[in-house]
Amino acid sequence: MFKSTNDCGQLTIKDIGKEVMLSGWVSSWRDHGGVIFIDLRDIAGITQIVFGQDKSSISEDNSSGLIESAHALRNEYVISVKGIVAKRPEGTINDRINTGKIEVRVKELEVLNKSKELPYDLKNLEEVSEELRLKYRYLEMRTGKLKDNLIFKHRLYQLTRNFFTDKKFYEIETPVLTRSTPEGARDFLVPSRLNPGSFYALPQSPQLFKQTLMIGGFMRYFQITKCFRDEDLRQDRQPEFTQLDMEMSFIDEKDLMELLEKYIVRIFGELLGIDIKTPFLTLPYDEAMLKYGTDKPDLRIPVKIKDITGIAASCSFNVFKKAAETGAVRGIKISGADGFSRSRIDTLTGELKEYGAKGLAWIKITEDGYNSQIVKFFEEDSLDEISEIFNASPGDIIFFVADSEDIVCKSLDYLRRKLGKKEEGDFKLLWITDYPLFDKDKETGRYKALHHPFTAPAKSDVKILETSPGKVRARAYDMVLNGSEIGGGSIRIHSSKLQQKVFDILGIAPADARKKFGFLLDALEYGAPPHGGFAFGLDRLVTMMRNLKSIREVIPFPKTQKAYSPLTEAPSTVDLKQLEELGLKVDIPEDKL
Amino acid sequence: MFKSTNDCGQLTIKDIGKEVMLSGWVSSWRDHGGVIFIDLRDIAGITQIVFGQDKSSISEDNSSGLIESAHALRNEYVISVKGIVAKRPEGTINDRINTGKIEVRVKELEVLNKSKELPYDLKNLEEVSEELRLKYRYLEMRTGKLKDNLIFKHRLYQLTRNFFTDKKFYEIETPVLTRSTPEGARDFLVPSRLNPGSFYALPQSPQLFKQTLMIGGFMRYFQITKCFRDEDLRQDRQPEFTQLDMEMSFIDEKDLMELLEKYIVRIFGELLGIDIKTPFLTLPYDEAMLKYGTDKPDLRIPVKIKDITGIAASCSFNVFKKAAETGAVRGIKISGADGFSRSRIDTLTGELKEYGAKGLAWIKITEDGYNSQIVKFFEEDSLDEISEIFNASPGDIIFFVADSEDIVCKSLDYLRRKLGKKEEGDFKLLWITDYPLFDKDKETGRYKALHHPFTAPAKSDVKILETSPGKVRARAYDMVLNGSEIGGGSIRIHSSKLQQKVFDILGIAPADARKKFGFLLDALEYGAPPHGGFAFGLDRLVTMMRNLKSIREVIPFPKTQKAYSPLTEAPSTVDLKQLEELGLKVDIPEDKL
Repeated sequence: MFKSTNDCGQLTIKDIGKEVMLSGWVSSWRDHGGVIFIDLRDIAGITQIVFGQDKSSISEDNSSGLIESAHALRNEYVISVKGIVAKRPEGTINDRINTGKIEVRVKELEVLNKSKELPYDLKNLEEVSEELRLKYRYLEMRTGKLKDNLIFKHRLYQLTRNFFTDKKFYEIETPVLTRSTPEGARDFLVPSRLNPGSFYALPQSPQLFKQTLMIGGFMRYFQITKCFRDEDLRQDRQPEFTQLDMEMSFIDEKDLMELLEKYIVRIFGELLGIDIKTPFLTLPYDEAMLKYGTDKPDLRIPVKIKDITGIAASCSFNVFKKAAETGAVRGIKISGADGFSRSRIDTLTGELKEYGAKGLAWIKITEDGYNSQIVKFFEEDSLDEISEIFNASPGDIIFFVADSEDIVCKSLDYLRRKLGKKEEGDFKLLWITDYPLFDKDKETGRYKALHHPFTAPAKSDVKILETSPGKVRARAYDMVLNGSEIGGGSIRIHSSKLQQKVFDILGIAPADARKKFGFLLDALEYGAPPHGGFAFGLDRLVTMMRNLKSIREVIPFPKTQKAYSPLTEAPSTVDLKQLEELGLKVDIPEDKL
Repeated sequence: MFKSTNDCGQLTIKDIGKEVMLSGWVSSWRDHGGVIFIDLRDIAGITQIVFGQDKSSISEDNSSGLIESAHALRNEYVISVKGIVAKRPEGTINDRINTGKIEVRVKELEVLNKSKELPYDLKNLEEVSEELRLKYRYLEMRTGKLKDNLIFKHRLYQLTRNFFTDKKFYEIETPVLTRSTPEGARDFLVPSRLNPGSFYALPQSPQLFKQTLMIGGFMRYFQITKCFRDEDLRQDRQPEFTQLDMEMSFIDEKDLMELLEKYIVRIFGELLGIDIKTPFLTLPYDEAMLKYGTDKPDLRIPVKIKDITGIAASCSFNVFKKAAETGAVRGIKISGADGFSRSRIDTLTGELKEYGAKGLAWIKITEDGYNSQIVKFFEEDSLDEISEIFNASPGDIIFFVADSEDIVCKSLDYLRRKLGKKEEGDFKLLWITDYPLFDKDKETGRYKALHHPFTAPAKSDVKILETSPGKVRARAYDMVLNGSEIGGGSIRIHSSKLQQKVFDILGIAPADARKKFGFLLDALEYGAPPHGGFAFGLDRLVTMMRNLKSIREVIPFPKTQKAYSPLTEAPSTVDLKQLEELGLKVDIPEDKL
């Protein structure tokens, strides 16, 4: 092996005439009448190397041996060469790469390793099954896209840690082998051999630990850390994922949100050259639901939902009248009414059934007036009023859903995303604030924490905590990017009494609270400062920043939807002896066999 | 809560007269005739705040209310104050802290949280049981030592990542839920719910993944990552610990060792202000064993072992003669022979039994000659020769152990550490190289990998791999600091054939190798570059850099020797339902109940 003088992305016309040594992989191979051209690739780039061009500089014997060796090379062979940097002949210059003006005329070659023929063509990855791609993940890493994604993530991580370190945050590691922190999803369990019958849980987030660190006086904590959720992997999820976790003491929402906006400005600026404007738009939860039907609105779609419940109450269309009494009647305006044939509207109506909507009403605005089956139920004035609310003009169509508020929101959110035009390539960031603290479970009638049970109630709502829990707003704030929640956080409860009260409302019995969160309740009694924090899902953030489809594209060694790794074949069966040591027996119910 | 204008470590005489707002914890509390002095503490330091000194600036009513409130404060209460920076009166200046020349005369006080009386005195931690300390870990975090240890670790982490990033390394995350990589210790297992009866393993190290990343073309990888070993925690170990892991392609031992020396120079320089000299001393394994009896010599002890096997062979002392034939006779010289009474030597002899030594011979050098029971077995010339080998002079004593080489090494290593004088406060770093590739298991007679089975054999020894495996040296290099191995690494095998051959010698059947390491064997066939790497145990490194006793002092939330967390009470029992979902049953053998 020659000791490399340069990497494969480095040499330019300034280096012409120099003797250099390069190492890397044969990326492609061409024989032009006895002269062999190879693209030599390493992590930094590609350099064209040539065999047989410059025979004068090599003795006759060496030359023929060298050409012979070069002939035996194949794609993905690993080689090391010594040669002279030369200018590429006119017409063969490649302006797309750094090294495109030069080539290296090889004097000596060493083959460091061979490669079998690859199991698939790296240039046609789209046609390869995901299982096969994951099995040979290391091959795909050599290609531009995955390599660039992982390098981007590396840069994001360094930038992130330096940003928070500059702001006097401390990176502190929290345990991986810990106790269950019930946050909605299932825990992965780890049996303890030294304590047979007992289990650790892998953390769903370091929530309790970061609060403990605040109580421990650290004041500013951050960590880029793995979190774990044993979910059914329907969506684009992974059993392990990476979170940027942070927490601060002696601050309020405003301090945190300002800081996090600065962070976002920094990473978009440095990594994408995009200038993100601050302050971000802040939408209270209720307003977001009213205007977009969701707390994760994609603001690249300018369409907004409008409410006509008041008008609907006084029309003679029974469906609207009834919904106006018990729910809501809202709609969205879409341009290009011609595009909506009866059958297309029927299809949309069918799609809305998934969200519980029993129907989809509409009015087309034409030069001649309002065109719709429901026009007859309205006074002309009301129709004009509706038209004005939507700022509608001829050629527009307005869709209405009349139902419970929940169904109206979900349906119109769907329609808005489905029909609204999107400004692709843009990044629209916003905050959602003033969430309800509790969510009422429809089946059990019990309150659940909308975020997690450590979220502080709005100061002004503490007094109604016990009387009207459903109306209490949370000091929570989520950050939304292009329709996805990329992070969430809150000011936490720092009073042991208030925390206990919230557990009461959630129906967590004192003994149960003590069992699950005892150490937090204890810690809150020994001088807990006011504190709050935030966590970003970094895999999702990178996926969105790079405009990719799946978080699997930014995770070096992801698992499939069955939480299986085709590369390592994990999970796998283990020796009986290992289970015996853990005091465990496999006992699979018949229906799962 | 007042919005802090400063932290508690910041204000100096330059700030006198300013109105400031501070938040923090009451660290101590003194009433001097109605004037109350409080040390207000936050992460950055301590500021003295005073109540009742400057009554003129506050109205009478406020003043008495303020004093009353200040009287009600107790240690570890969390407060926020507004006040004026003033010069401390002469005689009350504290030169040991930044803020020691000023105090803040409080105008307004807000109590943010109270604290119960602490379960123990933070100033007398040494007297508190470890179980109790770990239960209230957050309280200890507020004290200087643990706080400083964790901040030091934070700084080390940032420095480390920036160092490797500057050297064009990429930080890439490797999976936590993976497959067993058998490296000597037990794996922690994680049952898979989606694949009942199957288990993930938590990684003992990212070894196979970092090699895969090299095969994936990344060329320079690093990561600060958690590793897991389910060991019996006899020594100072933790079930989860943090490793600085790195790997490079197209390099040899020299490149890696130079880079890692630069890293050590950087961290010792920046974090401790200590100038570490390079290149480090490099000792081949055999030489380390000969001179120090161990591959982890503490070079702060200058004493070296000397070999007199040749002389012993020709003496008439049977014990020496026999050992010279089948083992070795070696010794160390210690000054101050007077200190070694017969009974002290008897005690040492007893202690050596643990290492298998059957006796301990000695010669005292006096002004009158040699004094020892074994003198009579040697010619005068031989005694002079021995004296010369040890460079002995009157007042010295030479201890000898004659036995198998293994027992001689262990015994003299012990004696050297026990009797040799140590230069405290110094940092002695060295490399141990040229380890044997294999170690023969005495009981089974089978070869085991001394490091791990992916370590490359020395190039010149490949030809004797099959004929004399015991003589093959490894391309491995460990870094030793003051008698502890702080990191280890090697050049790896990058040929699939050679890897298979090593598995053969280790008695790993091809089917078994395929099951355990199949993906590495596959990957080696698709253009694996020459590569090698290293891993530091960061907990140990920080412990040594800060001259601490236990890695528990640098881990924020450590576990006890029973792998138990007194803070979270993990591990714990879980709901039967959780186990059912995993297809598991607890089945503890009677002897473990």
